[in-house]
Amino acid sequence: MSLDDTWFSEASNDYGVAFSLKVEKKLADERTPYQHIEIYKSTHFGNVMAIDGVYMLSSRDNFLYHEMMSHPVLYTHRDPKNVLIIGGGDCGTLREVLRHPEVQSVLQVEIDERVTRLAEQYFPELCASNHDPRATFFFGDGIKWLREAEAESLDVIIVDSTDPIGPAEGLFAEPFYRDGLRALRPGGLLAQQSESPLLHMKILREMYTAMGNAGFADIKTLQFPQPVYPSGWWTATMARKGEKIDGFREQAVAAMSFETQYYDAEMHQAAFAMPAFFKREISERR
Amino acid sequence: MSLDDTWFSEASNDYGVAFSLKVEKKLADERTPYQHIEIYKSTHFGNVMAIDGVYMLSSRDNFLYHEMMSHPVLYTHRDPKNVLIIGGGDCGTLREVLRHPEVQSVLQVEIDERVTRLAEQYFPELCASNHDPRATFFFGDGIKWLREAEAESLDVIIVDSTDPIGPAEGLFAEPFYRDGLRALRPGGLLAQQSESPLLHMKILREMYTAMGNAGFADIKTLQFPQPVYPSGWWTATMARKGEKIDGFREQAVAAMSFETQYYDAEMHQAAFAMPAFFKREISERR
Repeated sequence: MSLDDTWFSEASNDYGVAFSLKVEKKLADERTPYQHIEIYKSTHFGNVMAIDGVYMLSSRDNFLYHEMMSHPVLYTHRDPKNVLIIGGGDCGTLREVLRHPEVQSVLQVEIDERVTRLAEQYFPELCASNHDPRATFFFGDGIKWLREAEAESLDVIIVDSTDPIGPAEGLFAEPFYRDGLRALRPGGLLAQQSESPLLHMKILREMYTAMGNAGFADIKTLQFPQPVYPSGWWTATMARKGEKIDGFREQAVAAMSFETQYYDAEMHQAAFAMPAFFKREISERR
Repeated sequence: MSLDDTWFSEASNDYGVAFSLKVEKKLADERTPYQHIEIYKSTHFGNVMAIDGVYMLSSRDNFLYHEMMSHPVLYTHRDPKNVLIIGGGDCGTLREVLRHPEVQSVLQVEIDERVTRLAEQYFPELCASNHDPRATFFFGDGIKWLREAEAESLDVIIVDSTDPIGPAEGLFAEPFYRDGLRALRPGGLLAQQSESPLLHMKILREMYTAMGNAGFADIKTLQFPQPVYPSGWWTATMARKGEKIDGFREQAVAAMSFETQYYDAEMHQAAFAMPAFFKREISERR
């Protein structure tokens, strides 16, 4: 069967795969200086945002990505006080980060203010913490911001960006990681969305090489389901300054004061179990 | 964008979600007494089989499902000698089961012989072990077969079926599980594909109830990615006769004589970590 325009389809032509949600109506359509943002009301997945035709998130399943981009790295760090989010304009990662009482400040550097303004309107639940006094917003270039950041001023950097083509390409490159390493305190962690293990092993291998060359002491990848992203299977990759990525604050997770949909202490450990083929490809590379 | 007929799309209308692969040509199209089987050559996922418009498997990603339907249950059992597969006509699960040297016999009961004959032709790699002297094929009704099976004659039953609508409905019902329990030896295990945690929690809850009511002593679910299935996120559920599902033959996994793409000892443990929402829903139910 073919799918008509009652579906919003993202075709990943390079991989011969497409994902579609049935939509009821278009809620917003804006061309900003950076990109084309569309928001739809879907029949079963709530509101949906796409940028340049690529699914960013749905109300229904964004908990997977946002929880797994924030809680594993924050609970791996011993005491995350100062956090930087690069990208993350929909504010879902920010909301999860602000659930951690030990976090004292979060700066979000998103290039396109319209992503955040539209998220406030169409994904208000993700923006519920935007007025938290610990949160600061800067709308500008994250690569430039990090280049000029004060040395050893951050505990955790979360790179919550689009795919490594176009504006986000520089976020997957060695100079960016070198700037991140400099801005982190000892033991600090950078966590970045790192695409699909089924479709994007080339990107993952290159990321490991670039992070390693930049001087990070250890790199680890975790996996999680993410239905609206190509192949429905996604990863985040962590790199640590000066020490191994080993263990996490398990008691703090067990005692966490907020409810999650996916993440818990058991999932923290489990998510780092990567497929046999991934281990072979990454260890051959390192 | 809409997707034209250069894509093969499976729309799950009840869930407002669709998955598509770009296809080059149709290789087979048969209407059997049971169902409509189509086989396509896709551009990036190799050959693909669909039954009644629903993706069954692709050459590219079937390793996920087939490994996770076979190795976890076989390595959980202390000494799996006699195995029954119900469904599994593409022979991918059978191939994985036959990789275990401790397995002495496998009977595959598939209702539709044409699925197997077409798999032999278009997925020869999955059928590579079909002439193993330990394998026997019976083409008929798995529900009826199990009803008449000898008591305490099996160690492991793997239910590798289509969704619980139409011919497969009875495979998700209490009478079937009661027959399975009777046919298993003490400590025996039944493992069944159990749909998507995002879309099908109702089916999972009902499965737990039916397996529990049938008298199984313990039930556990594991998760894995499966891109060609709705939401790209899938599960298998195990039920055990007379004892807890606890631990596995970890040393045997570490020493396994065959190469896997996804499964290993670390993944065995990790796959049983289910999402926080799943734990809440299932424990409230039990």
